[in-house]
Amino acid sequence: MADINTLAKEFTQFYYTSFDAGNDERQKLVTMYRDNSMFTFETFNLQGASAIGQRLAEFPFQRIKHDPQTIDPQPVDGNSVLIMVTGDVYTDDDPPKKFSQVFLLKNDNGYFLYNDIFRLVL
Amino acid sequence: MADINTLAKEFTQFYYTSFDAGNDERQKLVTMYRDNSMFTFETFNLQGASAIGQRLAEFPFQRIKHDPQTIDPQPVDGNSVLIMVTGDVYTDDDPPKKFSQVFLLKNDNGYFLYNDIFRLVL
Repeated sequence: MADINTLAKEFTQFYYTSFDAGNDERQKLVTMYRDNSMFTFETFNLQGASAIGQRLAEFPFQRIKHDPQTIDPQPVDGNSVLIMVTGDVYTDDDPPKKFSQVFLLKNDNGYFLYNDIFRLVL
Repeated sequence: MADINTLAKEFTQFYYTSFDAGNDERQKLVTMYRDNSMFTFETFNLQGASAIGQRLAEFPFQRIKHDPQTIDPQPVDGNSVLIMVTGDVYTDDDPPKKFSQVFLLKNDNGYFLYNDIFRLVL
């Protein structure tokens, strides 16, 4: 496994850059998920790339920017990386909010997002 | 696997009740970790029950109280549960702070804490 700190930093940067680049780029993140992936976004629980992809197309904001402040990875088994991110998120003209997000990246002929949990920290 | 929402709620309650009950009870949490467990507490990375148990005995506060606001579990493989918690933490007479914590509970003849990451959300 590559150095997990580098992997975590590069993945996080890729994820939020894509997420924040507008609807078209955000929807391309669907390729990170598979049929057994899970995505919890606030109180919504989604399973599978298809359902997750649909949700990625339905966010109501016009502009969003994630600013990660901490990125903490740990190895899981021989083939997965658990990453906890905390930071600030800016949507449209709202005041910034705190968020926390957890990714479990699993390597099975390439890394995919097995688990993904997002919460605003209010 | 038992219903993961129930498991997550019960585990979280057990963990924070023990953690907040003073030094003696907190140190008993060491039984939740094994030699391959990892614990990230802010910028400290610890591996193994022995190192983690030592850290659990060294927190500088006199009083601490965790008040979880969100508890989000997801299944991982057939035998693990990923839990993200966000909430408020009160130490001594300090103003309350926000925190986020991630647990990966793995079932191998009983659940143990395979991964544990804690961060204040500042």
